[in-house]
Amino acid sequence: MLPTIAREAGAIVMIDQRKLPKEEVYVRCKSAPEVARAIKTMVIRGAPAIGVAAAMGIALGVRNSKATGTQKLAAEFHKICELMAATRPTAVNLFWAIDRMRRTFAAAAQAGESVEQIKDRLDNEAQAIHDDDVASCRALGAFGAEIVPAEAHILTHCNAGALATAGYGTALGGIRGAIEQGKRAAVFADETRPFLQGARLTAWELLRDGIETTVITDNMAGALMHRRRVDLVVVGADRIAANGDTANKIGTYGVAVLAREHQIPFYVAAPRSTIDLDTPSGGDIPIEERSAREVTHVGPAQLAPDGALVWNPAFDITPHHLIAGIITECGILRAPYTKSLRQAKSL
Amino acid sequence: MLPTIAREAGAIVMIDQRKLPKEEVYVRCKSAPEVARAIKTMVIRGAPAIGVAAAMGIALGVRNSKATGTQKLAAEFHKICELMAATRPTAVNLFWAIDRMRRTFAAAAQAGESVEQIKDRLDNEAQAIHDDDVASCRALGAFGAEIVPAEAHILTHCNAGALATAGYGTALGGIRGAIEQGKRAAVFADETRPFLQGARLTAWELLRDGIETTVITDNMAGALMHRRRVDLVVVGADRIAANGDTANKIGTYGVAVLAREHQIPFYVAAPRSTIDLDTPSGGDIPIEERSAREVTHVGPAQLAPDGALVWNPAFDITPHHLIAGIITECGILRAPYTKSLRQAKSL
Repeated sequence: MLPTIAREAGAIVMIDQRKLPKEEVYVRCKSAPEVARAIKTMVIRGAPAIGVAAAMGIALGVRNSKATGTQKLAAEFHKICELMAATRPTAVNLFWAIDRMRRTFAAAAQAGESVEQIKDRLDNEAQAIHDDDVASCRALGAFGAEIVPAEAHILTHCNAGALATAGYGTALGGIRGAIEQGKRAAVFADETRPFLQGARLTAWELLRDGIETTVITDNMAGALMHRRRVDLVVVGADRIAANGDTANKIGTYGVAVLAREHQIPFYVAAPRSTIDLDTPSGGDIPIEERSAREVTHVGPAQLAPDGALVWNPAFDITPHHLIAGIITECGILRAPYTKSLRQAKSL
Repeated sequence: MLPTIAREAGAIVMIDQRKLPKEEVYVRCKSAPEVARAIKTMVIRGAPAIGVAAAMGIALGVRNSKATGTQKLAAEFHKICELMAATRPTAVNLFWAIDRMRRTFAAAAQAGESVEQIKDRLDNEAQAIHDDDVASCRALGAFGAEIVPAEAHILTHCNAGALATAGYGTALGGIRGAIEQGKRAAVFADETRPFLQGARLTAWELLRDGIETTVITDNMAGALMHRRRVDLVVVGADRIAANGDTANKIGTYGVAVLAREHQIPFYVAAPRSTIDLDTPSGGDIPIEERSAREVTHVGPAQLAPDGALVWNPAFDITPHHLIAGIITECGILRAPYTKSLRQAKSL
């Protein structure tokens, strides 16, 4: 399985997702600030993967600490947590993972554990977050497979695959699950400007698995649907509010509107760590805006002239009424989401 | 005014739209095949501009002929017309312009004019097609200005500007007209993958005119509309069928669906040469599919991995019911379009 992120002696190793598909390069982060920088600059991206990276980065930072007492260690720990929390604002899995590490630290400290014991605890917790994510994706993939017809053309936006998680993927996990069940699935991948996660990452990881993948520019989705070439849309999520409104990669909202226009079911696939009951609705989700250069340039090529203004929100909100179901590791949640999300979160 | 295309001694000169905005380079076509190749490779693009280029290319090809008799000249003329007709299938202005040149040739031949006289006739007709297009854009721009609010944020897709016409533009002509009337207009330009006409051309020509322009990726239009930052959508057209269904740059259909979802008026701006009463509806319009490389690469950067399939239709169809009005040089046409288009065409 694709190694999105892994622990090595004294380092966290990640595949550099900025360089794919042309180069398969691995980045070794030897400190918490290096991990934070990797998240911020999108060496690693995808809500679940960001959560895993933050947890592993925190464990690494604490492991590197020279503190001899728990109090000093706690101060360093909290600084590292804040550093991770400041990397990217939208994906709630980041804050969920940090919170899980905080609770682990607090419990260990309260139990009077030594500095070394606490370091081990945090290492283990980070690895558990990693392993839980893979297990969640596998479980989610089996549920997701249920909604895939026996012969399916599936449109996806951005990359909600192995590269966006610790492995296997969410939206792409469902597709992998369907194929494992003997169904035939071919994928249309929106290229997903400006960062091109669809063209670069989704196509790359699906082709590695021998899954037929057709890349389209984002603006072709409407014409494709109009020609009845799409049976199903499945995307990932960066944060699901308590009412089911879902933040996901910019452009998801437009795909959802087009799917409804053509009566094509539109599903969201995400582990429960993406559900944020503390955020009432989509309007309350902070939307990251990224640099103009992501839009004005592709590699060395300058697309827009100097002087052009740019708007570059990294995410948009798909309102819950456009979502046919939310595929999680506990099953497929249906409207009313206020109820089904609360239930799923409490399991 | 921006020189999209012009006649020089023994050549047709065009700004190379593939090189903008970084380089302002002019291409000199010295033969009809060179003009055909410039159309095919999108040195020049935009439905009205393609029509003008084809007419000028035909006049140039005939001017270059060594034929001494009308019959020999006619044979060469028809071959050149076929060459032009084979360049691009969707924009009907191309066939309209070729037809106008054919009628000019036939009339001159029937009148018993000499080879030199026929060459002059064709030169004059091509120049008239050029000048008519500029005049149409100016007239259309004044009508288009009517629908622009006093302070407007206007979204446009692709480039329906001076660069897509002999000058001034259609959709952008309306915006220029509004500004000439003292209105304040700022433009959001969809970048328009894969050829990036919005980021490269629309932004470039609007900034030259001092018009505020914000570039967004195509998939941001939905989020922008949802935030109520768009008052009006205006786009160009490559072919308008008898029932009002409109072929325009790929992605236009998605923008139209999103505009209706947000109750934003969606207008098409095009000269009457874009109206094709012989094509009953959008389903009858041939849609050009272009090379995969336009999608997989931007400049030297490879976006999609080797092995990925690509679908690259250059246009899509916006059904007439999504169109608030069609702005022409004779006024703004409204539904029922079957009637208003026939009336406009007969003027």
